[in-house]
Amino acid sequence: MKNRYSPIEGRAVELDDVDWVPFPDALSAGGIRWKLLNVAPELGSWAAIFDCPAGSSFNSHHHIGPGEYLLTKGRMEVRGGKDDGGETVNAPAYGYEATSAFHGKTYFPVDSEFYMTFLGPLQFVDESGGKTHALVTWDVVQHAWDGAQAA
Amino acid sequence: MKNRYSPIEGRAVELDDVDWVPFPDALSAGGIRWKLLNVAPELGSWAAIFDCPAGSSFNSHHHIGPGEYLLTKGRMEVRGGKDDGGETVNAPAYGYEATSAFHGKTYFPVDSEFYMTFLGPLQFVDESGGKTHALVTWDVVQHAWDGAQAA
Amino acid sequence: MKNRYSPIEGRAVELDDVDWVPFPDALSAGGIRWKLLNVAPELGSWAAIFDCPAGSSFNSHHHIGPGEYLLTKGRMEVRGGKDDGGETVNAPAYGYEATSAFHGKTYFPVDSEFYMTFLGPLQFVDESGGKTHALVTWDVVQHAWDGAQAA
Amino acid sequence: MKNRYSPIEGRAVELDDVDWVPFPDALSAGGIRWKLLNVAPELGSWAAIFDCPAGSSFNSHHHIGPGEYLLTKGRMEVRGGKDDGGETVNAPAYGYEATSAFHGKTYFPVDSEFYMTFLGPLQFVDESGGKTHALVTWDVVQHAWDGAQAA
Repeated sequence: MKNRYSPIEGRAVELDDVDWVPFPDALSAGGIRWKLLNVAPELGSWAAIFDCPAGSSFNSHHHIGPGEYLLTKGRMEVRGGKDDGGETVNAPAYGYEATSAFHGKTYFPVDSEFYMTFLGPLQFVDESGGKTHALVTWDVVQHAWDGAQAA
Repeated sequence: MKNRYSPIEGRAVELDDVDWVPFPDALSAGGIRWKLLNVAPELGSWAAIFDCPAGSSFNSHHHIGPGEYLLTKGRMEVRGGKDDGGETVNAPAYGYEATSAFHGKTYFPVDSEFYMTFLGPLQFVDESGGKTHALVTWDVVQHAWDGAQAA
Repeated sequence: MKNRYSPIEGRAVELDDVDWVPFPDALSAGGIRWKLLNVAPELGSWAAIFDCPAGSSFNSHHHIGPGEYLLTKGRMEVRGGKDDGGETVNAPAYGYEATSAFHGKTYFPVDSEFYMTFLGPLQFVDESGGKTHALVTWDVVQHAWDGAQAA
Repeated sequence: MKNRYSPIEGRAVELDDVDWVPFPDALSAGGIRWKLLNVAPELGSWAAIFDCPAGSSFNSHHHIGPGEYLLTKGRMEVRGGKDDGGETVNAPAYGYEATSAFHGKTYFPVDSEFYMTFLGPLQFVDESGGKTHALVTWDVVQHAWDGAQAA
């Protein structure tokens, strides 16, 4: 057996001890900021909280693995929003996004904030949903976060 | 291939549309209330939010599978709290509890609230950590929630 | 952020380099032997291969998390077998056992062998399915394996 | 709660009841054939067995989520093989490939067969590892399999 290693430890962080940094422009619009809270490499999961000003949005993406969010402030339009076959939720709200769910546009009509856990990566695609622009895995997330800390 | 079935759909819920119900006395003390937000049977995962008055606590349990929480209000002492080798966190705070983590007592010194996702069950045990009192799987959770709704 | 650590590495083992050891009598009957191939603590998953003589069986258990097997030799009666509402399969065969699946008795009418991956623990119970005899998590598995190696 | 649905059932299949079909040329070379055994959409996991003639190979890919294999026949060179920093294993052999593991080339020097479970998709890339050619999720896998059955 060459496969022995220590199980990971629990960890905790108070959110005010971490500064907001800009979320990459290539993946969002309107000034979204974020705090990376955890990556779990074995699982491929990660957790973050996002600060989304009125009018901001995330670019088109698929959830490659289930994701769960807690909207702690504001309003979020998911998968086009209620008027376009998706969901519109007001805080406080919870949602489960299934494996392979396609989010053509996630839009925040008012100042909003949400926490989300991701089991697996986000696949950002062009608007038709066909071509991969970026596959945001736990290690891409970690790398982006480290870069922002160093800046 | 007998294994075809539809992938699950996304789902969302506004928390004010769900009423708090008492969390089972057999597993907690001090008047904890909860809202079950989701169960995902294939994964064995579930999500809930807990309202924990000052002085309330959860009984001793292991996390059988990783769990992640967002403390949205108050203060939580995990694994004995900071004074006993564990963590004490003030809201807003995030934590990751590893697979097999033992929580001898989770205590709330002030009125608190936290949201948590569980990948797998909770195993409630006697204080020595040895004997299983209750194995709280997604289906036990669902059953408890349904019972409270019917009451 | 206290949460940085290295992702785990890939690992591989040739099965003939590992000796068979007896699987615990408390959980099986008829001389089952096994080789533990991996534990993945963050996930709570583990993998093993089992050598099951004609007439051997596993005691009653629930799968707490999905499990997948490849029967490489012989015949396996799952969940009572075909005559009792379950499945009977002949090698080579594949099966997916869902989260919370109850296996009242898993029986091998002829010399058999199967490989299985477990996402989460096995909960061994009395025949009524109610009382927990043993919760076999990745760390219990690791401990049992280490004990057998030391013997 | 709009989130009620039945947990999935166990399923089993005898492998001789399923015919081999060609694995897509865009992702492999040398005549690899496969049988899809299961997809689990909620988890994003899938399981398959592959028949790999001497000299065949899979194109460069990342494992987006852990994967575990049982090599039931022959020899497999993983991540370049033993001579290039990876692993070379002879059947019967087990391996765990970690989340984000990069497999520049998986090569079979002799007639081989392996069974593998995938928690999450495969990301096929160009040889530099940078550009995504195909993201093979559970639904892409299902679609490819269905297409081969209809042909």
